[in-house]
Amino acid sequence: MSHFDALAALKTIRPSNRKPDQMRNVTLETGVTRYAEGSCLVTFGHTRVLVTASVETGVPSFLKGKGQGWVTAEYGMLPRSTHTRSRREAATGKQSGRTQEIQRLIGRSMRAVIDLKALGERQITLDCDVLQADGGTRTASITGAWVALAAACDKLVADKIIEKSPLLDQVAAISCGIFEAVPVLDLDYDEDSNAETDANFVITGSGHAVEIQATGEKRGFSRQEFDTLYDLALKGTSELFALQNQVLGR
Amino acid sequence: MSHFDALAALKTIRPSNRKPDQMRNVTLETGVTRYAEGSCLVTFGHTRVLVTASVETGVPSFLKGKGQGWVTAEYGMLPRSTHTRSRREAATGKQSGRTQEIQRLIGRSMRAVIDLKALGERQITLDCDVLQADGGTRTASITGAWVALAAACDKLVADKIIEKSPLLDQVAAISCGIFEAVPVLDLDYDEDSNAETDANFVITGSGHAVEIQATGEKRGFSRQEFDTLYDLALKGTSELFALQNQVLGR
Amino acid sequence: MSHFDALAALKTIRPSNRKPDQMRNVTLETGVTRYAEGSCLVTFGHTRVLVTASVETGVPSFLKGKGQGWVTAEYGMLPRSTHTRSRREAATGKQSGRTQEIQRLIGRSMRAVIDLKALGERQITLDCDVLQADGGTRTASITGAWVALAAACDKLVADKIIEKSPLLDQVAAISCGIFEAVPVLDLDYDEDSNAETDANFVITGSGHAVEIQATGEKRGFSRQEFDTLYDLALKGTSELFALQNQVLGR
Amino acid sequence: MSHFDALAALKTIRPSNRKPDQMRNVTLETGVTRYAEGSCLVTFGHTRVLVTASVETGVPSFLKGKGQGWVTAEYGMLPRSTHTRSRREAATGKQSGRTQEIQRLIGRSMRAVIDLKALGERQITLDCDVLQADGGTRTASITGAWVALAAACDKLVADKIIEKSPLLDQVAAISCGIFEAVPVLDLDYDEDSNAETDANFVITGSGHAVEIQATGEKRGFSRQEFDTLYDLALKGTSELFALQNQVLGR
Amino acid sequence: MSHFDALAALKTIRPSNRKPDQMRNVTLETGVTRYAEGSCLVTFGHTRVLVTASVETGVPSFLKGKGQGWVTAEYGMLPRSTHTRSRREAATGKQSGRTQEIQRLIGRSMRAVIDLKALGERQITLDCDVLQADGGTRTASITGAWVALAAACDKLVADKIIEKSPLLDQVAAISCGIFEAVPVLDLDYDEDSNAETDANFVITGSGHAVEIQATGEKRGFSRQEFDTLYDLALKGTSELFALQNQVLGR
Amino acid sequence: MSHFDALAALKTIRPSNRKPDQMRNVTLETGVTRYAEGSCLVTFGHTRVLVTASVETGVPSFLKGKGQGWVTAEYGMLPRSTHTRSRREAATGKQSGRTQEIQRLIGRSMRAVIDLKALGERQITLDCDVLQADGGTRTASITGAWVALAAACDKLVADKIIEKSPLLDQVAAISCGIFEAVPVLDLDYDEDSNAETDANFVITGSGHAVEIQATGEKRGFSRQEFDTLYDLALKGTSELFALQNQVLGR
Repeated sequence: MSHFDALAALKTIRPSNRKPDQMRNVTLETGVTRYAEGSCLVTFGHTRVLVTASVETGVPSFLKGKGQGWVTAEYGMLPRSTHTRSRREAATGKQSGRTQEIQRLIGRSMRAVIDLKALGERQITLDCDVLQADGGTRTASITGAWVALAAACDKLVADKIIEKSPLLDQVAAISCGIFEAVPVLDLDYDEDSNAETDANFVITGSGHAVEIQATGEKRGFSRQEFDTLYDLALKGTSELFALQNQVLGR
Repeated sequence: MSHFDALAALKTIRPSNRKPDQMRNVTLETGVTRYAEGSCLVTFGHTRVLVTASVETGVPSFLKGKGQGWVTAEYGMLPRSTHTRSRREAATGKQSGRTQEIQRLIGRSMRAVIDLKALGERQITLDCDVLQADGGTRTASITGAWVALAAACDKLVADKIIEKSPLLDQVAAISCGIFEAVPVLDLDYDEDSNAETDANFVITGSGHAVEIQATGEKRGFSRQEFDTLYDLALKGTSELFALQNQVLGR
Repeated sequence: MSHFDALAALKTIRPSNRKPDQMRNVTLETGVTRYAEGSCLVTFGHTRVLVTASVETGVPSFLKGKGQGWVTAEYGMLPRSTHTRSRREAATGKQSGRTQEIQRLIGRSMRAVIDLKALGERQITLDCDVLQADGGTRTASITGAWVALAAACDKLVADKIIEKSPLLDQVAAISCGIFEAVPVLDLDYDEDSNAETDANFVITGSGHAVEIQATGEKRGFSRQEFDTLYDLALKGTSELFALQNQVLGR
Repeated sequence: MSHFDALAALKTIRPSNRKPDQMRNVTLETGVTRYAEGSCLVTFGHTRVLVTASVETGVPSFLKGKGQGWVTAEYGMLPRSTHTRSRREAATGKQSGRTQEIQRLIGRSMRAVIDLKALGERQITLDCDVLQADGGTRTASITGAWVALAAACDKLVADKIIEKSPLLDQVAAISCGIFEAVPVLDLDYDEDSNAETDANFVITGSGHAVEIQATGEKRGFSRQEFDTLYDLALKGTSELFALQNQVLGR
Repeated sequence: MSHFDALAALKTIRPSNRKPDQMRNVTLETGVTRYAEGSCLVTFGHTRVLVTASVETGVPSFLKGKGQGWVTAEYGMLPRSTHTRSRREAATGKQSGRTQEIQRLIGRSMRAVIDLKALGERQITLDCDVLQADGGTRTASITGAWVALAAACDKLVADKIIEKSPLLDQVAAISCGIFEAVPVLDLDYDEDSNAETDANFVITGSGHAVEIQATGEKRGFSRQEFDTLYDLALKGTSELFALQNQVLGR
Repeated sequence: MSHFDALAALKTIRPSNRKPDQMRNVTLETGVTRYAEGSCLVTFGHTRVLVTASVETGVPSFLKGKGQGWVTAEYGMLPRSTHTRSRREAATGKQSGRTQEIQRLIGRSMRAVIDLKALGERQITLDCDVLQADGGTRTASITGAWVALAAACDKLVADKIIEKSPLLDQVAAISCGIFEAVPVLDLDYDEDSNAETDANFVITGSGHAVEIQATGEKRGFSRQEFDTLYDLALKGTSELFALQNQVLGR
């Protein structure tokens, strides 16, 4: 795609010296906790999220007797995962609107690639806890949650609880944005807090989108700008799919 | 745009018999409450939202002394605005994740088209209360909130509190989705609850986007599908801008 | 009653120029929402309350298996129904003492005129949402709630779910008070906020009282003063009963 | 009053064998706690309420700088003050609607007989904690709260903080009701839970009412019935005023 | 024990003029409330706690079907039990960490001396409400809770609901501390608020400990100091056991 | 100490095959997060706790103007740090009694070894988040919190904000218990959930205790048993002090 070359030709303006279409160093590690049925420690540069997948028998009451399972997610940030300490949500007594928005997004993203009937009447909860935050925690969470979910499904198969994995596809997510008028891939905190536009794309292994959320932080964005962000996201997620497969030994 | 014609040629599959690119009947009425500085009763078909704009002196603590104002929004549904009664959020003791997500979206949309410095150290709160819900309450809220906000700004000018309206542009929102494999504009509840993809676009008068939220409910969506939804949204919002101008006598 | 004439002879001191025993213009409209089994938009002058009656199968746990139904009420004010914006109770996380007091009063008033055994094991919830407040919201709510309740009962009969309406009588409510030393009927906000005594009477169609609440705001009130208030309330509610019958076509 | 005689002539139907116009044994004891500025242990038969009056410098924010004081009340029941254990409100995380209704009533009753300007910028809180409940806890609380309040005011005078007591009058409260078709004074729990009508009267030493709350529990009540209840209440409170004076040595 | 004599020889430094190993005057009274299955009013000097034992059929869900009972405790302080008024926990909407810590301690202490299997599937709740606080409320609560619990168990036996009391032993508690460098028994508020070390011992009738909590408030404490505190606690609780037996007529 | 040899001679009964006085493998790592002023990742066998120390200017309101600082702690467990998933406290809306008890204990332990005056008007918050739990999370938290606190104090000195570290001593904590009648050091989950007695000791570098909490879970414990636990705790903490010094390069 020729406009990437054009972007790459620009004198790099990113605080991290990355090229516009260059992601941070991403690592995915699985099997990182002793008890969870699936787990993943995911890092995007300095952003570090611990995801666990917990399998429980039974489903929420609104699904009782429908012969299907459920996948849901919870998200939290350790109080000092950020530059300055934030209040602990357990102490304030409620989860912020941002937290709820993110955990709903993670849950929907996972449910988009799993056959809930094939899962049977069990619930898998993805707990995404941010140990360190440097931008992109929700997209890192989704990318890692899929690994933890896949590991938990593999365990259900290995334990002969279900016959084959109910997962239908991969899913990964990446942020893009317009920073100093240039569309860039995978915003870190320095970029995110100054971006003109911030967008998150959740993409499946087959290249379809399951969630797009784009926000013009300081100004609206043109359709052409949006199209470039979409291109960047597809490039980024294709790299993430490879990493997901690699960590799961596929 | 030729693909609209193609869509229109399809035997209509919408429960409401609307054409794919046809919005519901939309009305905007202002000056509907006695006390609020600005107000708008907005209807999209059977969806009916009452929006008030309340101007208060002072700003939230995180903005104290920065010489700027703030615009925020709150959203609620009357318990029986829906087919079956929902629990009253004041009685349950908290606002749902969905409510918070929507009110944050409305607030961001309004802030995208106002000069907060020019507003001065005052806060405008847009209360969007859904009297009756038939799909599209968040986009109706945004469309109506802009009218209420504009009316409140006009009142500040008329009362000689500020010299000219701090509004920089119009903003309106519309939902689109893929229903029975066809991209359609302005989903009503029957469509929304069965749509394969559901997207909300918040667009400015100058045609830029300030928010895009698209969700593949049952499957991912292709880039081409998304592009058609974007086309529909631009068509829909251009009609809404005309209605906004009309009700404000511009 | 001769003392009314005496009152009428006084130079009117009410801010609204009403005579002491004169109610505001009252309107009752039913069938105002698409989904609720019963509904009523009630106005007393500038006070405007939307009441819906929702019928649900089943009863609260304390009534399980007792072969009877239940009627309850919830009350809320839109944040900008008042002169200055009030905080949204859903956002503060709890209903105020005033809100709870009012919704308990509405519920008791309805239960006083319905045969809960005849209703069967179903619950009717009256949601009273104040769109605009100018005094007397609780009495307007009761007056309108009865209309919504009656409409819902009629619908149960029309749908052949129960054989005849379990309603035993009408019920309506009105406020009275002592304003500038004169007993007056149906206080508006200007009067209410300066009244020496404020009383609410809930009266049945047969002229019995089911609730009386009288408060000396600035001083106690004499028994004679109270008796005059009682007279006014009986006069006012008799007019309300006629309006209720009219809107229901009885 | 001749109708009392008529009532007395009835074969007594009260579970306690009391005559219709006979109160339970009432005791008021002051100086019962070591720290509070005023206190009163009040008993009406088996009902036992501990009231403390706490004087604090300063007023709630809505009164700052208005040169006046404030009197407020809080009410609670020990979990096993009742026949069966109730949940502790501190553990459930909120005060019930009933609790809030009662404490608002107590506060209003006290404020009706005190000159808040003369109190100066200080707040007196009446804590009414029910140690044992056998009906009439709210009226016992009011009757005892006045004693605690008077004691606290006397202490302010004795400590030379204010020159003379800001109390303008006495206030006491009593319940009445219609039990087995007979109007009776001072309902105990056995009567209260079966009464057809339940009324609470808050009366000042000069015989004016400051609060009347009457509820038809099972049916409406006639005006004549209400008048008899009013008579009973005036008789009962006149006895309570004498007891209040006695305990304070007036 | 010779070191007690040494302590006694010291010029007394306690504000109350008590000897280092001297408890305050302790009284235990049972049968103090009308409804509770067991009750005890316990005083340690000016500290006064009302304890009720409520027997209910059934157990918490985590014990369902395990063929055993449960004993738990709740603790509260009346707002003006203290020198200055504290906020009512029911009004603040949550129990403080201190409250929860204390009620968990009381519950564990009771469960240490009861055979939960022998109790059968019933729950006994000990409500410990502090009417007046002068230090040592948690140890007074435990000492009195055992009396209320024993009375409730005796009642179960008397009512022929169980054959013999499931209580296995007595339990009582006392505080000790280091005040002005001297180990002393049974701290009152003046001592407690200035103690260098504060320790609570919960001891059974057979002389075993079931809970020890020692805190160095201003400095750590040496092992020798701790041993002296332990000696004092054993002496104190042996006196409490005698009082418990006496009030229960054993 | 000869009784240790006796214990060691026993055929080992610990599930982990450890000797009675043998701790698990303990590691302390500092500098583990990018933003916190001090941090420590502490492991005791499979128990893993991430502690951060956050320095903020200013103190809680109860300390305003007293010329001193404050040290406090918060504690949390990731939902799947345990064998089965626990509910997220942020989602339930409150911290459990256990959580509050633990974080109060950690805070007191830190304050016992720091000169709050020398710290100046700043607050240090120790966030202790349990990534994986296998018994002993509170004692691991304390041991690691001291390292994070020391690192934060060293940073304040290095940044020339204060002249010398306000830390007066080291502090560490260890659990002991009676398992299968044998006193053992450093309980893991298998032991903890079956221990007859469970005790936590918080000890300073100079060998004084600042907190002792001992609970007889199934039976009381004798004084001799307690003395052995105390011996074990002193042995264990002396090893922890060496590790703390080592990681800080002292």
